Amino acid sequence: MTTIIENKRIKYHKKTFENISVDKQKKVIETAVKHFAMYGYDATNINNIASDVGISIGSLYNYFASKEDLFLGVVNEGSLLLEKELSKIDENENILIFFEKILRLSKEFALNYPEFNQIYLNLTTQNLSHLSNKLCNKIEHITAEKYKKLIKISKEKGYIRADLSENEIAFCLDNLVMMLQFSFASNYYLERMRTFLGENVDIKDDSIIESIVSFAVNSLTKDIG
Amino acid sequence: MTTIIENKRIKYHKKTFENISVDKQKKVIETAVKHFAMYGYDATNINNIASDVGISIGSLYNYFASKEDLFLGVVNEGSLLLEKELSKIDENENILIFFEKILRLSKEFALNYPEFNQIYLNLTTQNLSHLSNKLCNKIEHITAEKYKKLIKISKEKGYIRADLSENEIAFCLDNLVMMLQFSFASNYYLERMRTFLGENVDIKDDSIIESIVSFAVNSLTKDIG
Repeated sequence: MTTIIENKRIKYHKKTFENISVDKQKKVIETAVKHFAMYGYDATNINNIASDVGISIGSLYNYFASKEDLFLGVVNEGSLLLEKELSKIDENENILIFFEKILRLSKEFALNYPEFNQIYLNLTTQNLSHLSNKLCNKIEHITAEKYKKLIKISKEKGYIRADLSENEIAFCLDNLVMMLQFSFASNYYLERMRTFLGENVDIKDDSIIESIVSFAVNSLTKDIG
Repeated sequence: MTTIIENKRIKYHKKTFENISVDKQKKVIETAVKHFAMYGYDATNINNIASDVGISIGSLYNYFASKEDLFLGVVNEGSLLLEKELSKIDENENILIFFEKILRLSKEFALNYPEFNQIYLNLTTQNLSHLSNKLCNKIEHITAEKYKKLIKISKEKGYIRADLSENEIAFCLDNLVMMLQFSFASNYYLERMRTFLGENVDIKDDSIIESIVSFAVNSLTKDIG
């Protein structure tokens, strides 16, 4: 599950970017999102981004020092957006309820903002490790800690088995969230989901989420009810 | 879980490729694997591959009609290799035992052949969907069917709960295998695994596999023992 850049103050643009109108800022980011999602980092040409925005390449370099910075700015934007969505999940101390909520939210986010998930897929590949190395901890840390905290509380409250490892269960649960998210992010994963769930599956149907929730709930509550 | 190109007879090279020595064929494929894994499809330059092999670009085009065909040839090679490894898993009718074996095998494969998993990660991104569209079904179909068959038998034999959906459980189990595999495939996922499991985790330690197995076994056997 991608989430939350820890320090929102990290900025990848130059100060000049803040001098243009919010609408124009949005247009630059949205156009960059489309290009990076469609072509991937390596094949994205920032001359084409400038041209689609309707500005010169010189202006674009006045806003972002490099293609790398523009890409990082876009990733940051996606993280902030997801953070905003995640804040809608009410604080809940039961990991089983949190898990269902985060699955639903991830699916909605993937359907509403497919480009951000496509960029995330790109970011996790080995050839982009020079960009992603320092990002991973920022992107994954807060979600990981959230899971671990809720698993600990849920063990204490008796919602789930007391013998479970917080770290390992957090890893398993988030792995299921990641793969659901990916299933809506690229044609490959969409086709893979159909291969497993059947050609006629309605991918927007909630039964997929319900079955993943049952899978986890059965595991975490075995022998306690 | 990547596996098995259904029809081994699909060839992406030209006939001339078969006229050179097996050692030279291997050198071409191994060099291409390294380049595609390190740079990704888009940033791979086949002139550099030819140069690293020590042949002219004209010769390389005599063996493969295009960069796309060379890439597909490499993906095919990885699938055949994994198929060979998978054949070492004895036929077993119990999905719980099969699941543990496939987890161990996927981890070993990822550690022994990191490049193939890096290429696989690349293949699943949206910007390569023009290449992967027709490959997904071939790569995923046989594993998916294998899971479903074993889940069905295991339900009948009483190894697991009888009320489970074969399709949905197959999807959940393979999602856990995929994410373990990825955790050894790129720096991003390796860092993510450490974020969840702890900085000091020995990534080669078998306890990670044991915890994923327990997670699945608890789920599938709840209320039956």
